[in-house]
Amino acid sequence: MTLENIFKNINERIETLDLIREPRELYEPVDYCLKNGGKRMRPAMTLLACQMFGGDMEKAMNPAIGLELFHNFTLMHDDIMDNAPIRRGKPAVHTKWNANTAILSGDVMFALAGKFMMGVENDHLREVMETYHKTVIEVCDGQQLDMNFEKRAKVSLPEYVEMIRLKTAVLPAACLKVGAIVAGAGKDDKEHIYHFGEYIGLAFQLKDDWLDLFSDESKFGKKNGGDILANKKTWLFTKALDLSNAPQRKTLLGAFANKITDPEEKIRTVKDIYLNLEIDHLVIKQMEEYYGQAFSHLAKIKVPESNKENLYALAKNLFDREI
Amino acid sequence: MTLENIFKNINERIETLDLIREPRELYEPVDYCLKNGGKRMRPAMTLLACQMFGGDMEKAMNPAIGLELFHNFTLMHDDIMDNAPIRRGKPAVHTKWNANTAILSGDVMFALAGKFMMGVENDHLREVMETYHKTVIEVCDGQQLDMNFEKRAKVSLPEYVEMIRLKTAVLPAACLKVGAIVAGAGKDDKEHIYHFGEYIGLAFQLKDDWLDLFSDESKFGKKNGGDILANKKTWLFTKALDLSNAPQRKTLLGAFANKITDPEEKIRTVKDIYLNLEIDHLVIKQMEEYYGQAFSHLAKIKVPESNKENLYALAKNLFDREI
Repeated sequence: MTLENIFKNINERIETLDLIREPRELYEPVDYCLKNGGKRMRPAMTLLACQMFGGDMEKAMNPAIGLELFHNFTLMHDDIMDNAPIRRGKPAVHTKWNANTAILSGDVMFALAGKFMMGVENDHLREVMETYHKTVIEVCDGQQLDMNFEKRAKVSLPEYVEMIRLKTAVLPAACLKVGAIVAGAGKDDKEHIYHFGEYIGLAFQLKDDWLDLFSDESKFGKKNGGDILANKKTWLFTKALDLSNAPQRKTLLGAFANKITDPEEKIRTVKDIYLNLEIDHLVIKQMEEYYGQAFSHLAKIKVPESNKENLYALAKNLFDREI
Repeated sequence: MTLENIFKNINERIETLDLIREPRELYEPVDYCLKNGGKRMRPAMTLLACQMFGGDMEKAMNPAIGLELFHNFTLMHDDIMDNAPIRRGKPAVHTKWNANTAILSGDVMFALAGKFMMGVENDHLREVMETYHKTVIEVCDGQQLDMNFEKRAKVSLPEYVEMIRLKTAVLPAACLKVGAIVAGAGKDDKEHIYHFGEYIGLAFQLKDDWLDLFSDESKFGKKNGGDILANKKTWLFTKALDLSNAPQRKTLLGAFANKITDPEEKIRTVKDIYLNLEIDHLVIKQMEEYYGQAFSHLAKIKVPESNKENLYALAKNLFDREI
């Protein structure tokens, strides 16, 4: 199946899922959250990995949906914690309803995710559920580290990378691994596909950080510099602090402590330091390094090269994306 | 093993669990919540059922802990939603830390619960996990119904009973069933032990409602009438509305709409109507009926009667309790 058809397939399956039952107050927000767009990258990865290892993609469908449910559950709870009113251009669940609804509907969504994860053959049940639980716990760890870092003046680059690994990279890694498990892949291959996903996930987050400041605004669809205005400690900021001289450092820390009140001036000041330190190039270089690691893992997987084409194409799309 | 030793055993296991790791901000509230007392009724039930069916209690220990973790996770999130500052005489997690901490630590606690549930033999994994997920979803349904009912003027008695069945009775039922599964009990026996737990759970909640208003305050440890002051729609209130004449009904609804401002007078007024309608006797009668149902299920289980002694004793303790 082509990459395009796999995305079409998973999209249709999710759009036609019948999740609403009594009490409706509990399940309507679940349905709203799950069906509020999203690229379906994660469940597609489960299907893609299953296909690559020659498995029956239908058998990967339940855990693929489970992983997408889990991902959306994390968004529902994160949006409460981050006090973020909008998700994908629409009101977040805690905005459209209220925080209590987002807590409890999130909880039941998390439970539903686990239930879908169980929809695999008995031979694969324990391994799928172990991979899932390990990942879920790591994603919570990552969110906690992210919240901790917000309160700290300084975060080292390795700390930052470990945080984004947990918060965003282990989930695509697990999505791929689950597809591999269901397809009956070998032990080494499962590790390689996991690390492929992990490095792709890291690269994806760095591209996010880069796009926020350096993208073509007309294509990106929003103004550059949102992360700076939100004082978000991205890879760019963390690396810049590492490389800055004393005056630059003072300016950066001052800007992120809201000492520059004009938004345009704040973005321009920070961006100038970034450009001076060549952070825009360094982040692309680091991203390419992660891609290199990812591809070296993919190369080691013992299936015909033609089977890997879709995953290469997906990685390329993510690398080239302008939004 | 005696009932007393089983409780001692599970208490020791839970007290010595080593849950705290990095990031500590995430796991310290989990540890605090789990180890903040509690009677350990649910995990003890898992061990008791396992023992009754001749199973090795050690093999029931992981899911027993998982079920207690799940129960405490629901308390952590419920306390945020109910805006309840105190739990078992100590600050609730969202009071001691904050709501965000209680959300995320609750989420990871829920994930840890699932991980402990998986600590059973492969032959029982699917059945244990299916029982667990079904129950978890029902408990969420019950909490949502409880929140819905708070906003409604009238709730019928069957609606109330279904709510408490979901919110409080299916969990002890599942705890017993999981112990039975792990011990390799037969299909019918697993259903009977489940329904035994369900009816015991319903009776337990009714006793709670009764104790709140009619207990011996010197033994109960708090003043009678807390539910009335909180306008909580208990079995007592729901039954009273059913049986009341027009003036009583008006008084009851008025009292629960805070039309009586003096707390003592509010409790006295409502209690007088309850006594006039003999609600104090009717609730005990209903409770006895649930106990009867519970015991008839226990009687049908095909193990030697001597194996059932601990569960009979536990049920009797719950029935006779004064706190």
